[in-house]
Amino acid sequence: MRIALDAMGGDYAPATTVEGAVEALLENNALSVVLVGDEAELSSELEKKNCKALRISIKHASQTVEMDESPLTALRRKKDSSLRVAVDLVKSNGADAMVSAGNSGVVMATALHVLGKIQGIERPAIAAVMPTLKGLFVLIDAGANVDCKPVHLFQFAVMGEAYARHIFNIDNPKIGLLGIGEEDAKGNELTRETFKLLRNSQINFAGNVEGKDIFAGEADVVVCDGFVGNIALKISEGLAEAIAKMLKREISERAAGRLGYLFFRQALRNFKKKTDYSEYGGAPLLGINKPCIISHGRSTSKAIKNAIKLAANIHAKGVLDVISKEFDKGLSGRETVAVQK
Amino acid sequence: MRIALDAMGGDYAPATTVEGAVEALLENNALSVVLVGDEAELSSELEKKNCKALRISIKHASQTVEMDESPLTALRRKKDSSLRVAVDLVKSNGADAMVSAGNSGVVMATALHVLGKIQGIERPAIAAVMPTLKGLFVLIDAGANVDCKPVHLFQFAVMGEAYARHIFNIDNPKIGLLGIGEEDAKGNELTRETFKLLRNSQINFAGNVEGKDIFAGEADVVVCDGFVGNIALKISEGLAEAIAKMLKREISERAAGRLGYLFFRQALRNFKKKTDYSEYGGAPLLGINKPCIISHGRSTSKAIKNAIKLAANIHAKGVLDVISKEFDKGLSGRETVAVQK
Repeated sequence: MRIALDAMGGDYAPATTVEGAVEALLENNALSVVLVGDEAELSSELEKKNCKALRISIKHASQTVEMDESPLTALRRKKDSSLRVAVDLVKSNGADAMVSAGNSGVVMATALHVLGKIQGIERPAIAAVMPTLKGLFVLIDAGANVDCKPVHLFQFAVMGEAYARHIFNIDNPKIGLLGIGEEDAKGNELTRETFKLLRNSQINFAGNVEGKDIFAGEADVVVCDGFVGNIALKISEGLAEAIAKMLKREISERAAGRLGYLFFRQALRNFKKKTDYSEYGGAPLLGINKPCIISHGRSTSKAIKNAIKLAANIHAKGVLDVISKEFDKGLSGRETVAVQK
Repeated sequence: MRIALDAMGGDYAPATTVEGAVEALLENNALSVVLVGDEAELSSELEKKNCKALRISIKHASQTVEMDESPLTALRRKKDSSLRVAVDLVKSNGADAMVSAGNSGVVMATALHVLGKIQGIERPAIAAVMPTLKGLFVLIDAGANVDCKPVHLFQFAVMGEAYARHIFNIDNPKIGLLGIGEEDAKGNELTRETFKLLRNSQINFAGNVEGKDIFAGEADVVVCDGFVGNIALKISEGLAEAIAKMLKREISERAAGRLGYLFFRQALRNFKKKTDYSEYGGAPLLGINKPCIISHGRSTSKAIKNAIKLAANIHAKGVLDVISKEFDKGLSGRETVAVQK
């Protein structure tokens, strides 16, 4: 499997991207990686790694996309950016999948523009992973679409289901609709309509799930629009960080606490590992014709390594083909909408 | 100050409501409380407390509102419920403010129906309080309105500002709009329009704030629609609980951890206190003509005590008069909308 890596994307690129690629190749013999970006910089990074025998190559790109650049500007003016060249490489079949830790808005726009959508999909969505007391759940959409219609949310459910089933090996994943009450009729206009679509479909629909229940593992896939999903994701990140800081401060304020902290540190480390985004590597942009992984801007080499492995896994398991077939079988949501009308 | 307490509302009523009322009276000599509900039950609870000298009375109500009852049904069929009688008491000037830990949808509908809105307010909103690393922030709307227009969010900002200033003594509170990016143009249709309204007003507007920043204390008032706000609140509750459980599990799985836990426990308790809703007692339904406090269904006696003190405080500081005057002065948002058009 050949992965195109936007080696210039992310806050710590290209050091962490090159490092992450090398780590991924060391762990998986079936992989090869094309580092896309400034040839001189990337060669120099690669030389430090002393890994000539690995299945790694460089493809030059003269531009980079800035973190605050608008998708439109980038699409027009950055046709030789590391991101664009990586996506073009997938389009021309020079790679099977793409990974970028760059400007996520530009990654989405570029993937959509160059690679296009799976037939029947109206809006691609970001599928993020979050930890629960039992394991994990898939949050979809985590930020690709800020204003959605019921049929979009329905399609997110179908895509999230395929992702949870094939990548996280969850049998018959339970789909929950993120809402503000468990009763069927609770929610806003969007979720009330989506509720009806999901209830009348073949999906294993668990009904509305509340924010307080999702970390208890009440659903394997949690569906919402990208505005709500992104807020849910960022609030969780922010609160987890704030809690860790509050606890540390509490501990350091008292001597017994400081002593306790020595014992406690390992538990805190294991806990952090469970809630650490870098364990999951990144979030696929589902609904695009080829696997595209969006990684956190702050990605470490470990996050890049895991994102590369995730991209390869989505390709190997044929997740996009599964989604495509489900939409062919009449799970696009359009039929259900038509029946209800 | 006279507080009407829906003594039958909440999961642990009437034991916790009566207990909370007695605690509030012991702490504040200027208070009197009317317990509204089943006379026999309340008398029996009060007798246990042995507090005849306190400024407490009982007003009989023959019905109670169930937690799963719809607002419409309750309004029609429960005209002698403990909630309704408590609200009626405020309306007839038999009390200055009202507290209920009952069905929040019914509390809102009843308060709106019986007491009405402050002139100029389009939608009353729930103002919840959440902890930050520096102190706290006010989240408005925390769940009263699921589908909002920009002018509603603008009004929430004005009400939240008055609440933060007069109840939490924050000088010139910074107002943030909950969104998914710090740039002005980021967000969904609703927040992009609201952004313009807030920027063109006299409000101390700090721009968009992201979920990851709110716990760092970037804004004193965080404005959003009630759907997003309720999800933000519930996710925070759920995640904080899940993190506490994960940590405890991590600790109990290893011997050194168990030892560490002994030292660590006090820190954990102090931390819990900071994130404990019962410290704040409840959330006012701002925009109603009289102070109405909605408390958590799971309210302990401490939460009820603090809710009663909050109700008294809002009345004493004249927060609703402040809001009313600001709307008279042209801060209803309507003028700003008109200017932009």
